[in-house]
Amino acid sequence: MADLFLVLIHHPCLDRRGRIVTTAITSLDIHDIARSARTFGVRAVYVAHPVREQRDFAIRVRDHWFEQPDRLFDSRRREALELIHIVDDLDLAIAEIERMTGRRPILVYTSAQARDGVSCEQLRERMASGDSPILLMFGTGFGLAPAVRERADLVLNAIEGAGDYNHLSVRAAAAIILYRLRGR
Amino acid sequence: MADLFLVLIHHPCLDRRGRIVTTAITSLDIHDIARSARTFGVRAVYVAHPVREQRDFAIRVRDHWFEQPDRLFDSRRREALELIHIVDDLDLAIAEIERMTGRRPILVYTSAQARDGVSCEQLRERMASGDSPILLMFGTGFGLAPAVRERADLVLNAIEGAGDYNHLSVRAAAAIILYRLRGR
Repeated sequence: MADLFLVLIHHPCLDRRGRIVTTAITSLDIHDIARSARTFGVRAVYVAHPVREQRDFAIRVRDHWFEQPDRLFDSRRREALELIHIVDDLDLAIAEIERMTGRRPILVYTSAQARDGVSCEQLRERMASGDSPILLMFGTGFGLAPAVRERADLVLNAIEGAGDYNHLSVRAAAAIILYRLRGR
Repeated sequence: MADLFLVLIHHPCLDRRGRIVTTAITSLDIHDIARSARTFGVRAVYVAHPVREQRDFAIRVRDHWFEQPDRLFDSRRREALELIHIVDDLDLAIAEIERMTGRRPILVYTSAQARDGVSCEQLRERMASGDSPILLMFGTGFGLAPAVRERADLVLNAIEGAGDYNHLSVRAAAAIILYRLRGR
């Protein structure tokens, strides 16, 4: 079965007006996505940010749970946060995955709008029969910029709700997609 | 189709050692669960807390997005937060649902451990054919206390990951369960 990886991208993303921006890191993204990733067998989660101070903040959020002796008994949170790697950008995440697996990952673009791509179920089948690692790319703010889509090998269809409204948090969207790719 | 409701319970919950506690309200629970609920057609979300100051905090988190004129253009967030009702306890949530629907809701207990209950797919079928409103009960902290389980009409089986690890945030678990009950 193909190894599954996830990258949470903070640049280039969109703001609410569609402008290209760099978003700030949200500490709860790191915790929630780490826990979902650990539950659904993701091999590593990359938090990508171009600004040094923001990467340092993410490292503090992650390492807090390793440094405090009185936190040691919550080993389940540590097991999840061990998956988190802080990197400058998507290229460094790809390079790390190539180093770990010996293969270039298939880049999968996610968004709340895509309708002309593959379904989670199709990607799940592909992962079951294929060997190439899969890297799911998630955006923050109001989603990934078009430049990220241009680099993708696959586009994952948006999660569809009960009606037209679809404005999930990235934490919720990642949880649902990981469930659909790896849940029982 | 049966109406779907959700209550996020802060007392009685468990802490990491299994003691009965009252948890603090997490602002991002309100935002994330409101957005997931709106996406998947939940009719109302109750945030239940026995402490007045905590309820006031929850009301401020919700109403912030209605009071700031410069926030008005993010109407999608408002549409989600409109679903949020702040109540003292489960009984008041039940009473509101009875008033709205004319029926007593079926109480559904969720946990990260249950294996002997119904699946999401079974509950989805029941909702398609039944008329009674469904109230999904979610715990905070380390989950709902046994006293809440004793009141439940149904127990929902835990989400199963790729292995033994199952320590999702309540935000992630609610998203996955709502997707399984109402997603396309």
